[in-house]
Amino acid sequence: MTVLEGFLSTPEAIESFGGRSFVDAMLRFEAALARAQARVGLIDPALADTVANTCRVDLFDVPKIVRESGHAGSLAIPLIAALKEAIGLFNPQAVAATHVGSTSQDVIDTAMALVTRPVLDAIVQDAHAIRGELLRLAEQHAETPLLARTLGQPASVTSFGWKCVLWADAVGRCLARLCETAPTALAVQLGGAVGTQAELRGQGAAIVALMAAELGLSAPPTPRHTLRDAWVALGCDIGLLVGTLGKIARDLSLMAQFEVGEVSEPTGKGRGTSSAMPHKRNPVACMTALAAAQRAPQAVAALLGAMPQEHERALGHWQAELAEWSQLMLCAHGASRALASALPGLEVHAARMRANLEALRAQLPAATAAEWFDPALAAHAGTLARAQIARLREAPSGTAA
Amino acid sequence: MTVLEGFLSTPEAIESFGGRSFVDAMLRFEAALARAQARVGLIDPALADTVANTCRVDLFDVPKIVRESGHAGSLAIPLIAALKEAIGLFNPQAVAATHVGSTSQDVIDTAMALVTRPVLDAIVQDAHAIRGELLRLAEQHAETPLLARTLGQPASVTSFGWKCVLWADAVGRCLARLCETAPTALAVQLGGAVGTQAELRGQGAAIVALMAAELGLSAPPTPRHTLRDAWVALGCDIGLLVGTLGKIARDLSLMAQFEVGEVSEPTGKGRGTSSAMPHKRNPVACMTALAAAQRAPQAVAALLGAMPQEHERALGHWQAELAEWSQLMLCAHGASRALASALPGLEVHAARMRANLEALRAQLPAATAAEWFDPALAAHAGTLARAQIARLREAPSGTAA
Amino acid sequence: MTVLEGFLSTPEAIESFGGRSFVDAMLRFEAALARAQARVGLIDPALADTVANTCRVDLFDVPKIVRESGHAGSLAIPLIAALKEAIGLFNPQAVAATHVGSTSQDVIDTAMALVTRPVLDAIVQDAHAIRGELLRLAEQHAETPLLARTLGQPASVTSFGWKCVLWADAVGRCLARLCETAPTALAVQLGGAVGTQAELRGQGAAIVALMAAELGLSAPPTPRHTLRDAWVALGCDIGLLVGTLGKIARDLSLMAQFEVGEVSEPTGKGRGTSSAMPHKRNPVACMTALAAAQRAPQAVAALLGAMPQEHERALGHWQAELAEWSQLMLCAHGASRALASALPGLEVHAARMRANLEALRAQLPAATAAEWFDPALAAHAGTLARAQIARLREAPSGTAA
Amino acid sequence: MTVLEGFLSTPEAIESFGGRSFVDAMLRFEAALARAQARVGLIDPALADTVANTCRVDLFDVPKIVRESGHAGSLAIPLIAALKEAIGLFNPQAVAATHVGSTSQDVIDTAMALVTRPVLDAIVQDAHAIRGELLRLAEQHAETPLLARTLGQPASVTSFGWKCVLWADAVGRCLARLCETAPTALAVQLGGAVGTQAELRGQGAAIVALMAAELGLSAPPTPRHTLRDAWVALGCDIGLLVGTLGKIARDLSLMAQFEVGEVSEPTGKGRGTSSAMPHKRNPVACMTALAAAQRAPQAVAALLGAMPQEHERALGHWQAELAEWSQLMLCAHGASRALASALPGLEVHAARMRANLEALRAQLPAATAAEWFDPALAAHAGTLARAQIARLREAPSGTAA
Repeated sequence: MTVLEGFLSTPEAIESFGGRSFVDAMLRFEAALARAQARVGLIDPALADTVANTCRVDLFDVPKIVRESGHAGSLAIPLIAALKEAIGLFNPQAVAATHVGSTSQDVIDTAMALVTRPVLDAIVQDAHAIRGELLRLAEQHAETPLLARTLGQPASVTSFGWKCVLWADAVGRCLARLCETAPTALAVQLGGAVGTQAELRGQGAAIVALMAAELGLSAPPTPRHTLRDAWVALGCDIGLLVGTLGKIARDLSLMAQFEVGEVSEPTGKGRGTSSAMPHKRNPVACMTALAAAQRAPQAVAALLGAMPQEHERALGHWQAELAEWSQLMLCAHGASRALASALPGLEVHAARMRANLEALRAQLPAATAAEWFDPALAAHAGTLARAQIARLREAPSGTAA
Repeated sequence: MTVLEGFLSTPEAIESFGGRSFVDAMLRFEAALARAQARVGLIDPALADTVANTCRVDLFDVPKIVRESGHAGSLAIPLIAALKEAIGLFNPQAVAATHVGSTSQDVIDTAMALVTRPVLDAIVQDAHAIRGELLRLAEQHAETPLLARTLGQPASVTSFGWKCVLWADAVGRCLARLCETAPTALAVQLGGAVGTQAELRGQGAAIVALMAAELGLSAPPTPRHTLRDAWVALGCDIGLLVGTLGKIARDLSLMAQFEVGEVSEPTGKGRGTSSAMPHKRNPVACMTALAAAQRAPQAVAALLGAMPQEHERALGHWQAELAEWSQLMLCAHGASRALASALPGLEVHAARMRANLEALRAQLPAATAAEWFDPALAAHAGTLARAQIARLREAPSGTAA
Repeated sequence: MTVLEGFLSTPEAIESFGGRSFVDAMLRFEAALARAQARVGLIDPALADTVANTCRVDLFDVPKIVRESGHAGSLAIPLIAALKEAIGLFNPQAVAATHVGSTSQDVIDTAMALVTRPVLDAIVQDAHAIRGELLRLAEQHAETPLLARTLGQPASVTSFGWKCVLWADAVGRCLARLCETAPTALAVQLGGAVGTQAELRGQGAAIVALMAAELGLSAPPTPRHTLRDAWVALGCDIGLLVGTLGKIARDLSLMAQFEVGEVSEPTGKGRGTSSAMPHKRNPVACMTALAAAQRAPQAVAALLGAMPQEHERALGHWQAELAEWSQLMLCAHGASRALASALPGLEVHAARMRANLEALRAQLPAATAAEWFDPALAAHAGTLARAQIARLREAPSGTAA
Repeated sequence: MTVLEGFLSTPEAIESFGGRSFVDAMLRFEAALARAQARVGLIDPALADTVANTCRVDLFDVPKIVRESGHAGSLAIPLIAALKEAIGLFNPQAVAATHVGSTSQDVIDTAMALVTRPVLDAIVQDAHAIRGELLRLAEQHAETPLLARTLGQPASVTSFGWKCVLWADAVGRCLARLCETAPTALAVQLGGAVGTQAELRGQGAAIVALMAAELGLSAPPTPRHTLRDAWVALGCDIGLLVGTLGKIARDLSLMAQFEVGEVSEPTGKGRGTSSAMPHKRNPVACMTALAAAQRAPQAVAALLGAMPQEHERALGHWQAELAEWSQLMLCAHGASRALASALPGLEVHAARMRANLEALRAQLPAATAAEWFDPALAAHAGTLARAQIARLREAPSGTAA
């Protein structure tokens, strides 16, 4: 990411999609490949050891590999060249046991799954935390009367707890979906030059299975070089979660307006301040989540738009996908981290919620006020809230791959 | 759709999202609501009968309702007004038993699910047919040698059957996903004015369940006025299917180039011809699928981008979602119908596939030709293909809601 | 458009992109072509008259042509067939003088420019009206103190007039840009079968010039079958205008919140009401503009994404562009019409603006209130506003093609 | 950018949007601000000197500022804090003369213009070079017969030179547009806390003019904190150029297919090779341009989608814009650099162009071959080409800001 994106993400995500982490993941692929091929008898175990032992990121000049990737049009080309060169120094015979039956896309797609996983785990953990906090708030404010607004105008009464339940339910649905999709999506890619595993002498499935076990990824029955649905599906699910976080942030930021004053984001040293206005208290977490909700849909569109990949490896579409994928994950983690950090300290101003309601009632004909804006209407919402909180507390929580 | 979109869709889809069909669906909602409310004792059964019996689309001036929707900012406003007026003619008392405890978005969201279902069913049926045709082709050409191309250049050998297997597998995955998501997405919406079902006197869940049974939709535990994840998830799954169809169309159209000549789309009277060039034979099905694959990602982005909907009903985002949803379904059905129609008549030119391979071999050093472009390499692909065809034939086929 | 899009557009735009209007525009192209070709001596003037006289939309079965366009993959194919058939009835010899040296894309692209022009004119007229209303409001409220908000929080003081000036200035910039781009974009397309005008015997430029004069379009020096920049540029400019209208609608809708209460949209019979809540007064114009601002960026992305059109006519990309173009124009006119209609009746609550400011001051330390929230600070903004109003009143107004 | 985007951009663009360059640009803003304010008598010239002299990037811990930007929600907050701290060490009195009357968005928007300019200049230079190379190829091959293809199928004959003319014309149009838009877009932003320049004591315009002169930017009459049309317009123009480059790359890559063989991208050491297949010669430049053409539309959509920015500074939309802007510029420069580098070495296989034509003729009825596929038809295209080359050589070339 450029310096203009980084502040919307997290250090962990930035690092995970950085050069060192990605080269390391590519090397893990190569090591697992060699070991698996030795296990099935495709290459000599001793040579495989040499290969695997050379697959240590500290041995490589990462910036040089990254630099050369632009010229080569691929990160794998310079990495494989450097790897073979390094292996050649240790044991020239082992060069022929390196990257056997694999191709650049195998390395890169698998490495992408490997660097995605920790970021995805972090997002899932954040989403669980968010859901938990929302249920806590829901319980606490199950019957706290709150003006309900439709099309930007007062409509009737709800409760803040019910609002929190609806948010929590949506986050839980997105989580469940994400955790259902992720294990399939995070897969070993090993199709060889053209997706036929031709060079693996009929051992393709066995090698994939061994690699999957070692790398903690799934072993798909067919390679996916240009059939990207399972992978893009995960991107869609991330997009849905970000959209839901954006919904929560939208509501919170509207409630945090001075004139509404129903919630406040927690503040902290150097957070939410202004370079010009000492009195400012900016809802920075909402900002981050809302920025992500603006950006993620376009990243998902880019992923979907890149699906018609030509033949056995695409010219442009795959490369666009790689770039957009990393964007998406970076901004998604920024969003989840922001809300997970802010919600525990969220200040809820129940008195102001009621005051806003009363201010409206004072302006309305008595009959309308009584029919539509009686604070007692929050009891309905409270009853619903309590029932759903119970259901949601019992619901199984998803886990990522 | 404008006249410039219609040719990329189908008459069925266009009709389903047309005025008459949508008004009919809104009326089915109102009828089901009245009947359910009578069953739980909320309204008088005789009045409910009057309401339900008036909910016949033939009684209404559909173009007038559609026309007024622009002014009203909603299709439901003029429909409810017309419905109440009509009911009032039959039985003035029944007016108060109409649309009880419901709001515009309830009617519209539920109607949207109702008009979406048949289109979705048709898409699913097309996708099954496509998958079936691809498996048939896969079997027939399991070992037919075919030049494999990566980054637009000859890479090695695959088989046409293996290519078809990978396509079929992807279509199957998209189908399974779609059929998993649809039942949850196609739901009764009944939240009332602000999503609290306040006017339903604690009978909300019971009414939703009865309506769901009558309308053949699911009964979600919480309303989704501004929590759109379950609905947008279905849009994403449609997007994934369209992307996969686009991938198939992209490959077919590249193979159908004159200089490649490996497949031809079937022709028909007035199909694929040119207004200027009598010799033209245009791959119109691929065109339709590729056009959809360009458009669907943007529709999905619009749906995801509209997720941060304000409070209890959004100002702009929801309305944008309605419009984009119908677009997405229209172009998706255009794509699935196009490929489902074209694949049974696809001409596969196996001899030309081999000839292209031989032409390349003739230009290469003998060693390269032998290592990478031996037609016998197709046998690997053939073995994989046969194994996967067996797996895919056994796999359970999804069904839509 | 489907019934779910129509309420976000206008009857005029819907009609202009409807079947009858488009067939009429295609016929105007064919008539102009025949007349121009007669003028340069390419076809017999009497036969050209027969062609031109047959190009009357009332002679054609528009729904049939539209229906057949799906099968044919193009609107021009069935139209040209029907046209030749009709001409054959009058004078069989004239058939050979029909559609000479032209191709489907020529007809369709030119017809698209023709049906776009009136909608564009209407948008431009609306934008002028919006700019004018904003300048009127700016003058009236040049020094009306208004809380300035950044990141959703009170920041300091501005004036409502200054806010209106900034809006007006942006609308004016978008208008100027649009009116600069439109004349080039709205062009005759006449490249013939493959963009070489091969069948026009060196008279291509002359024919294009004559047609341009007759149709009121520009005459580009080179055909643009697959070089879409000039056309898509107009789409981008529409996108910029819609984005600016969305900005205005966003601010107005935030100011129209009950808790803020600084402006109200005008109401009218059946406008802005609710099917459930008699007290609702929904800002329907803002809704329409905001919905457009959600959708237009996706349509522009689709246009840009469709630019890499293959060779001399694209397979899918062009067709996607046609569909998305009409969407974009429909939603853009919906947005401009909505704001142009609402602004003259906008209620500005200056007292509430000041009251909101005072309410904030009351909560702040005196020094902060004095430094940042003194209503007198609006004088600065007022001075700027008056200077800019003068500049903007003098600025030349753009006009569309 | 992450390591997955970098290979699609250029080292120069990556550096320009990197931390050091951006901090440097922010410091240039602060220095120019202080100097301008001294000139108009707003601050003491000696203190301004202290401020300006401290604005040297080497004095600052850039990684720390970048790191803190995530927490602060802005790059400007930690930079201003660090700047004031550094100035305080030199001369405590000068702290009060720092960042006077300015706000974070002023610093960041202006810095963005500053770091964008060199990248834009490089893109413009590349586009000129591309246009020049295309005109050279056009001249050389003005009458070289080439199969024209529509909807992926042979349609008739054109010339390669005419194809190049149409590409060059489009690039020239995009360039002209870009160079028209850029000077207005690349502007000083100085609105102060809320866009009223309240703290500048009526000297706002004068200060902006001085800063504009020093920084080589334009001086807009009104600030643009939340009216982003002029800026986003530049993004659209970049999108149009990328789309046009994508069109050229699409055609070239189709012509470079082995079965077509009409052009070849130049190769070089480590460029276009494969990690698995020694015989591969991948069109890496086309790949980069096509990847950009997939991504840029989404970035433009994000910019347009972010236009409805709330009030005087947006919560999320502006921040999303910053991130997407830098993406767009990075991928645009990758695309322009790729084609500018590849075109001078493009191999054009005129004999193969003719052979493809002959191969088709051999398969067609003699009459069709004669009417539609006579190589002599290229003469038409050649005549058009020569006329347009002359026009284009005379056309003034645009220059960026």
